[in-house]
Amino acid sequence: MIIVFTGGTGGTKLVQGLQQVVAPEDLTVIVNTGDDIEWWGLHVSPDIDSVLYGLSDLLSKERGWGVDDDSFRCLERMKQLGQPSWFSLGDLDLATHLTRTAMLRAGKSLSRTTAELASKMGIRARVLPMSDERISTMLDTAKGTLTFQEYFVRERHQIAVRRVRFEGAHRAHPAPGVIESIEAAEAIIFAPSNPVTSIGPILAVPGIRDALRRAKAPVAVVSPIVGGEAVTGPAGALMTMMGWESSIAGVAKAYEDILDVLVADRADEAAASAMRSESLRVLCTNTIMKSMDDKRELARFTLEACAVQRSAEA
Amino acid sequence: MIIVFTGGTGGTKLVQGLQQVVAPEDLTVIVNTGDDIEWWGLHVSPDIDSVLYGLSDLLSKERGWGVDDDSFRCLERMKQLGQPSWFSLGDLDLATHLTRTAMLRAGKSLSRTTAELASKMGIRARVLPMSDERISTMLDTAKGTLTFQEYFVRERHQIAVRRVRFEGAHRAHPAPGVIESIEAAEAIIFAPSNPVTSIGPILAVPGIRDALRRAKAPVAVVSPIVGGEAVTGPAGALMTMMGWESSIAGVAKAYEDILDVLVADRADEAAASAMRSESLRVLCTNTIMKSMDDKRELARFTLEACAVQRSAEA
Repeated sequence: MIIVFTGGTGGTKLVQGLQQVVAPEDLTVIVNTGDDIEWWGLHVSPDIDSVLYGLSDLLSKERGWGVDDDSFRCLERMKQLGQPSWFSLGDLDLATHLTRTAMLRAGKSLSRTTAELASKMGIRARVLPMSDERISTMLDTAKGTLTFQEYFVRERHQIAVRRVRFEGAHRAHPAPGVIESIEAAEAIIFAPSNPVTSIGPILAVPGIRDALRRAKAPVAVVSPIVGGEAVTGPAGALMTMMGWESSIAGVAKAYEDILDVLVADRADEAAASAMRSESLRVLCTNTIMKSMDDKRELARFTLEACAVQRSAEA
Repeated sequence: MIIVFTGGTGGTKLVQGLQQVVAPEDLTVIVNTGDDIEWWGLHVSPDIDSVLYGLSDLLSKERGWGVDDDSFRCLERMKQLGQPSWFSLGDLDLATHLTRTAMLRAGKSLSRTTAELASKMGIRARVLPMSDERISTMLDTAKGTLTFQEYFVRERHQIAVRRVRFEGAHRAHPAPGVIESIEAAEAIIFAPSNPVTSIGPILAVPGIRDALRRAKAPVAVVSPIVGGEAVTGPAGALMTMMGWESSIAGVAKAYEDILDVLVADRADEAAASAMRSESLRVLCTNTIMKSMDDKRELARFTLEACAVQRSAEA
C-alpha cells in the first residue's frame, strides 16, 4: 500500500506517475479539499477534480486544470446573464460538478461521491478527500479575508498574505479510510504541493498529523521548491510568511516532525548536502515533470527512496 | 394592457407575434409552470424558458425549444458519468437553469427570478409564472403516475393517460401581478397551447379562473386544434380523455365559462359556422405559424377580434 498526499496541479503530476509504477489498487490518494468552492450553486472540489482528471487522462495538458479539449460556452452565457465569471468551469467539467452536487444534496458524503465519480471515470486507485466535513482555507490579506480561490484565481495570488486559517478544521474528522491507510501504508509520499495551502489543510484535520508521526512507513516529501522558488504558484511567498523560508530547508522545517526522506531537485544539491543528517535522508533527482517519463521516473525514484529508508530502519 | 396565457412551444409563437404588434411594456405573459422539473439538481422551467428565449430571439427555430445554435457537450459527459440523459439541456441553456437555481436557493421567488432573467435577456414584456409555489402536473398512465416531462419527453406521449392532476395547486396562490393583470387587461388571450396540460395548470391555481370569469376584458382563445387534431403534441388525446373531444367544439367546451371569442383555423370553417351563437364569436383565419409574418398576423387578428368584441359589448 502506497499513500500519497496531494493538492491539485503540481501534485497531480506525481500522482499520475505513481499510477504508472504502482498497481492502481495499491495506491491511495488523499486530497486537499480546503480550496473547495460553492460556484454557481455547485460544489466544486478543484484538487479532487485535478486528481480525477489526471488519473483518467482527461486533464488538460495545456491549462493544467479542467478537462482537455473543453469549451466554455456556458461560462460565456453566464457572463451575459450577469453571473460571476472569474472562476472558469468548462462545459465538460460542469458535468462533474453537477453530478457531485446532486449526490451531495441526495445525502451522500464527499468521499462516497468521490469514489463514485472515480469509478465512472475508470479510475482504480483509491481517491479520498481529507475529510467529509467542510474545511475552508481562508487567507487574511491586505484586501481582507479571502477564500483560497478568491486569493489564487481572482487575485492571481498577487497580494500579501498575513495569515492562513483552516475554517472548520478543528471540529472535522478524517474521511473514512484516511487513518487506516496511513497505518497500513508501506510508503507515505507528499507530492510536490504547496505545504501551506495544499498539504497544510490536510495536516490540520485532527488526527492526521498524529497518525503520520506514529506511522511505521517512511514519510517522503517531494519538494515543491526548486532553486529557492516554487515550481508554480505562491508556495514560496506563503512559506516565507509562515517563517519556514522558501527553500528545501523550509520544506524540511514545515514537516520536521514527520519527515524521513526529502526528495529535492538536482538544482538544490548544495543545500541538500548541508542538510543531510542521521535522522534525515535528502536525495536529489530531476523533480520538474514535463513528460510522462519525468512523472514515472520521479515516482519510481521516490518509491525506491522509501524502500531504502525502510530497510535502513529495519 | 394585453395579457396572454401560454404554455411552451406552440403558445410561444403567438407570444412572439404579440410582442411585435403590442408595445412590449403593455404585454403581460402568464406562463404554465406545471411541467417544471428538477433535473441534475437544477430547477428547470421549460415553458418559462421557451417564452424567454422566444421573446429574446434566442429560441432554436430548428428544435422549437432551447437555445439556437446550442451544443450538448455537458449532456454527453453526464451520460458518461452515468447520469440520466433523457431530458436534454444544452450548454448555453444550462446557464439559465444554473442562474435560476442559484437565485431560488438564495431565497428569491420564481417570479422575481423570472423577471431578473427576462431583464438580463433584454425582454421588456412582463413574464409571470402562474404561481410562485410548486405545482406539478401529474399524469396517471398505464405505466403509473408520471410527471409531465416523463410523459411528454421520456415516453414521447405515446401512452394512454387516465387522469391529469395538478399536485400542490389547491394550496397555491397566483404569482404577484397575475390577478391584477387580469383585472386591468383590455384583452385576455389564450395562446394555442394544450388546454389540459398547458393552460389547465394555470386555471387550477385558486383565484385565476374566478378572476377570468369576472374580467371586464374579452377572453379570446386561439385554438390549438386544427382540423380535429393538435398542431403539435398530445392535446387531442388529452382533450378526448377529458371528455371535451378533439375539435374546436372541444376547445370551446374546455373554456365555456370564460370564453368570448374563439379564433379557429380556416380548416375548421364548417365547424365554426355550426358553433356561432350570440354568446360565442368564432372567427377563422390562418393559425399555423411558420414565419414571423404568420405570428404577427395571427396576433393582430386576435387583438382585432378582442377590440370588436369589446365594442359589441359596450
